[in-house]
Amino acid sequence: MKFVRLHRIAALPLAVTALLLLGAIIIPLVSKRPAADPAADITRVLQDQAAAWNRGDIDAFMAGYEPSATLRFASGGNITRGWQPTLDRYKTRYPDLAAMGALTFSELEITPLAKDAAVVFGRWTLERANDKPWGLFTLTFRKGDSGWRIIHDHTSSAVP
Amino acid sequence: MKFVRLHRIAALPLAVTALLLLGAIIIPLVSKRPAADPAADITRVLQDQAAAWNRGDIDAFMAGYEPSATLRFASGGNITRGWQPTLDRYKTRYPDLAAMGALTFSELEITPLAKDAAVVFGRWTLERANDKPWGLFTLTFRKGDSGWRIIHDHTSSAVP
Repeated sequence: MKFVRLHRIAALPLAVTALLLLGAIIIPLVSKRPAADPAADITRVLQDQAAAWNRGDIDAFMAGYEPSATLRFASGGNITRGWQPTLDRYKTRYPDLAAMGALTFSELEITPLAKDAAVVFGRWTLERANDKPWGLFTLTFRKGDSGWRIIHDHTSSAVP
Repeated sequence: MKFVRLHRIAALPLAVTALLLLGAIIIPLVSKRPAADPAADITRVLQDQAAAWNRGDIDAFMAGYEPSATLRFASGGNITRGWQPTLDRYKTRYPDLAAMGALTFSELEITPLAKDAAVVFGRWTLERANDKPWGLFTLTFRKGDSGWRIIHDHTSSAVP
């Protein structure tokens, strides 16, 4: 009887160990599934930005950007670093609704690079009373606790 | 004796299972180490590009780009798609050494996003006999079988 008991004691950890083993094999496999396509979430961030811009709310527009000192906004030959300086730049360049015009983001090309990273390329257009500037942009998006946010923005203008 | 043998038989798989369990836990942890810093490899790709450019070899310069129809090159408001059209564009715009000038890439900021993906931002400068155009670039790099290659290039010119 003593040996039988030992045998049972040995078998119990065996079963538990086998279960743990299965879990240890299966969980990493599951967690390595291709990341869910972030395109819908990222598109919504950009739609929200355009909607905010088009009601003249630059502060709400800025919600699409990572609120960080390392945010980088590049345009032409200029580099702006940090969320607050980027906000200040927008407010200086677009002081009123006439300057802001109607913003459209179009032809989005979203390239997921990791579960928490993507590059987004597209076209921006401003329709204003007297002109219609447009150009291209490349955005680096990262996903953090508050969702997908732009960490780098590189914008270029088409020569009119 | 029979029970003792059973006990041993039970203990053997337990030890093997425990080893497998350890392996199953440790191997994914090790494989999830932060990716090796790709900065050195990526910097070398860009240095090789600049060196090729500066000896007038646009074909060798193009080795930094993914040889793919999905390669995307954007500049100002123009988009060029595919490796061959990108090569053709360079050869049309820079027909000789005088037009090519001396290329420098500087102020590189390399942001690793995954083991096989990074975004690279920096400044380009061409020194030519009569002018010195410069601007900024954002590159998406992916690492494949032949190393790190540019899959997206977005370049902007500083207004002189």
